[in-house]
Amino acid sequence: MGNLISVDRKMKFQNFKRSELAERLGRLARICNDLDIPILIIVDGWESSGRGYVIKDLCREFAAKNFDVEVFDKDESFDDLYPFIRKFWVNVPEKGKIKIFDRSFYYKIFEKKNLSDKEIQKRIDSIKSIEKALFDDQTIILKFFLNIDKKEQKKRIEKLEDSIKEDFYIDGLDVDQVKNYKDYEKHFKKTLVASDFSYSRWEIIDSNDRKAASKEVLGLALDKISQGIERVVRQREENENEKRDYISSSNILQNIDLSKSISDDEYKEKKDKLQDEVAKLMYKFYQKGISQVLVFEGVDAAGKDGAIERLIKKVDPRLYSVHGISAPSKEELSRNYLWRFFTKLPRDGYVGIFSRSWYGRVMVERVEGFAKTNEWDRAYGEMLDMEKQIYDHGSLLLKFFVTIDKDEQLKRFKDRQREPDKQYKITDEDWRNRDKWDDYIEAMNEMLERTNASYAPWIIVEGNCKKYARIKVMEEYIKAAKNHLKKLENKK
Amino acid sequence: MGNLISVDRKMKFQNFKRSELAERLGRLARICNDLDIPILIIVDGWESSGRGYVIKDLCREFAAKNFDVEVFDKDESFDDLYPFIRKFWVNVPEKGKIKIFDRSFYYKIFEKKNLSDKEIQKRIDSIKSIEKALFDDQTIILKFFLNIDKKEQKKRIEKLEDSIKEDFYIDGLDVDQVKNYKDYEKHFKKTLVASDFSYSRWEIIDSNDRKAASKEVLGLALDKISQGIERVVRQREENENEKRDYISSSNILQNIDLSKSISDDEYKEKKDKLQDEVAKLMYKFYQKGISQVLVFEGVDAAGKDGAIERLIKKVDPRLYSVHGISAPSKEELSRNYLWRFFTKLPRDGYVGIFSRSWYGRVMVERVEGFAKTNEWDRAYGEMLDMEKQIYDHGSLLLKFFVTIDKDEQLKRFKDRQREPDKQYKITDEDWRNRDKWDDYIEAMNEMLERTNASYAPWIIVEGNCKKYARIKVMEEYIKAAKNHLKKLENKK
Repeated sequence: MGNLISVDRKMKFQNFKRSELAERLGRLARICNDLDIPILIIVDGWESSGRGYVIKDLCREFAAKNFDVEVFDKDESFDDLYPFIRKFWVNVPEKGKIKIFDRSFYYKIFEKKNLSDKEIQKRIDSIKSIEKALFDDQTIILKFFLNIDKKEQKKRIEKLEDSIKEDFYIDGLDVDQVKNYKDYEKHFKKTLVASDFSYSRWEIIDSNDRKAASKEVLGLALDKISQGIERVVRQREENENEKRDYISSSNILQNIDLSKSISDDEYKEKKDKLQDEVAKLMYKFYQKGISQVLVFEGVDAAGKDGAIERLIKKVDPRLYSVHGISAPSKEELSRNYLWRFFTKLPRDGYVGIFSRSWYGRVMVERVEGFAKTNEWDRAYGEMLDMEKQIYDHGSLLLKFFVTIDKDEQLKRFKDRQREPDKQYKITDEDWRNRDKWDDYIEAMNEMLERTNASYAPWIIVEGNCKKYARIKVMEEYIKAAKNHLKKLENKK
Repeated sequence: MGNLISVDRKMKFQNFKRSELAERLGRLARICNDLDIPILIIVDGWESSGRGYVIKDLCREFAAKNFDVEVFDKDESFDDLYPFIRKFWVNVPEKGKIKIFDRSFYYKIFEKKNLSDKEIQKRIDSIKSIEKALFDDQTIILKFFLNIDKKEQKKRIEKLEDSIKEDFYIDGLDVDQVKNYKDYEKHFKKTLVASDFSYSRWEIIDSNDRKAASKEVLGLALDKISQGIERVVRQREENENEKRDYISSSNILQNIDLSKSISDDEYKEKKDKLQDEVAKLMYKFYQKGISQVLVFEGVDAAGKDGAIERLIKKVDPRLYSVHGISAPSKEELSRNYLWRFFTKLPRDGYVGIFSRSWYGRVMVERVEGFAKTNEWDRAYGEMLDMEKQIYDHGSLLLKFFVTIDKDEQLKRFKDRQREPDKQYKITDEDWRNRDKWDDYIEAMNEMLERTNASYAPWIIVEGNCKKYARIKVMEEYIKAAKNHLKKLENKK
């Protein structure tokens, strides 16, 4: 590990007092608070490498209301019921606040020295997606790895074992690391090199001397946070003026045959059977402990909610939750936009249905200017990253896009205004959105083109005939669900 | 159980079709949605009594986005780390939405036929506090107990055991209930009678015939929700005009000796030792798995946050979270006001520190009129109920009230405006609040008087001398923490 440690740098901070460094760090934290910049500090490393000591020093001068330490030492019983990255997403820092991860997602690699290279790379890809998304979202990310040599680790663990008082800090991994120090060292090195991203670099800290280590961490935090502030301020200025020169030429929606329809009789004949089958399949997924994420997007009044109601008509209501996604709340706005969706992911066996979804980022937020160009432009990749996590967890992920033409929308808007029971469904906003029909179609076309991944394909649903759309949603669901189950069978 | 079932009532609904009743129920639900009225429906009963069947029928015509079913069948590993009522509070319905509890807090009694009467009563008291608070907050509460006789239960369980398909619905309790039917019947009866509150009555449903049972539930839901709507609408009108004739004559704050102070030397001498001791005690609580809830209230600029910072200065930052409580968010406003505090309770071993707290209800919300008279007036009791839950769970609960006089406040406001580093601490709102000094003092006096329970006493902290206040907070914490540990020792 020695060659990863910078001796020069270590010297640089040794002339300062820790209290002095901590005070300066406290001031920088207040600036970040003023500027609404979130900070994520990861402190990971060998067992007994002194994470607690370092974290305590780091926090000394942070305002108590502005930071929080999350300890990721053990998985809760329910953590395994979700994509592994979810619990970290749920804990991302708010704007202006500091989150310290005591251990982190890297622990999910570090703790297992026998992980295959392939599995390591897969987890690093997941980690990369969260770090990249947070970095791009103006988060300052600091990653410290506390390194100690074998002799020091052995000494510390023996001391800990002698003292009941500190049992807080001991678990079986301690002993295993001392025993297999070389193997772990190799494992750590490999992981650290592979996850040393340009936007979130590792700092390897020589922690054989706790005080010196802590001083170095404080000094580095100072340097990196002040650089981070500069970066964010510059980035904000640039973003203000940013325009995109690229224009998507996709016209998927223009080429859809919206004349497709079915008769009332055919609808009646098919509906009940399909609903029974959907109910059976969803129950089968429950039994097998597989979660399902169903996304419904589409132009206003296309019939998303109607299709959802029919789809789940006969399903045990304990199995699903339907999330109607509207404008984000204060809590949601103060974190990365994906946070509110990670918190709503269904656990194994259950179904999460999203009536509108994360795709709002590249539709309403793009068209109405709620997101800046660079924000929605990079969202295509971020959303696919999230979906990849869901897919890799083994879930079924389907995305339905229900569409109608402009005349049909006008007809439905007018219907809604006429019928007292439906008036609540139509607002001034709907009319305003309609004025921007072409902008929305352009945004939707680009979205359909750029986010149609093999693991998360879009299913276009022709919606002019409501009944046709409802049947199609059910049929497509059934086809995909059966396929998913068969694929799982074959894997065994 | 027979004598708890109404035969007349059952007849009343048998002439209707279930689909018809469900449709009417759907319409009522939409009205509640329009009127922002939350609905809580509890479906509990014997094992295999058909809860799933009834719930499915109930939800048939609810808009998918407006309801959710919570299944309370098993405790998660972390549920025991909190007061038992917490996980139900975390799941209270939002305004305009419907929450269905499949099983409920009552399951925490029903599942154990050998619970002592004392323990049953204790749990019912906890349940009563949540039901009462929700009812007073204009929630419509429905409680159904599905009853089946021994023969029918035996038949159903045997059928279930034969069919792998429905293993979803089976657990050990099934078999135990058939074996000890009489004992459970007695246990249920006792519980049902004791928890049949005037504001949330039980409906005992004969569920030997699932369809008839479901029809009865639908019919009763219709009746009770329409009555509920009437009640809430009437209540809202009354609340508009409500004034309180009672005036609190308490003048606790006027009688405090604010001249108390200590010298800089004394402060320096004491501070470090006290901080070390606080850190040790908090760590001891961690080791023993006891959570701590520390509340800080006081007039503006009294020095709450300064006192908190000193208190936790040497504590391992992984052990505590400090919650700065400001104006509620959209999510928070859409639920009972206690929800946001239940979600923030610390788990066993950890410390939750509240800089401002639920007491905002009877201070800022009272004085500024954000809460109606009846809302803040009943909050004294509701907040004590919550604190009782925390206390009964074994936590240490301390409430500090830091106070200064009007001259001292003026001095501090002016200081804050002068010093660039402190300007963020002073806003126009602070000056507006100052104009209402007397109103705030009156509200605070009444709060201190009415919520000073033995299990959650107020500790008045004289704040004109900041250093005196900080030392007092630490000393009082140490005293109380030691006491708490001693009491627990003695209990063993």
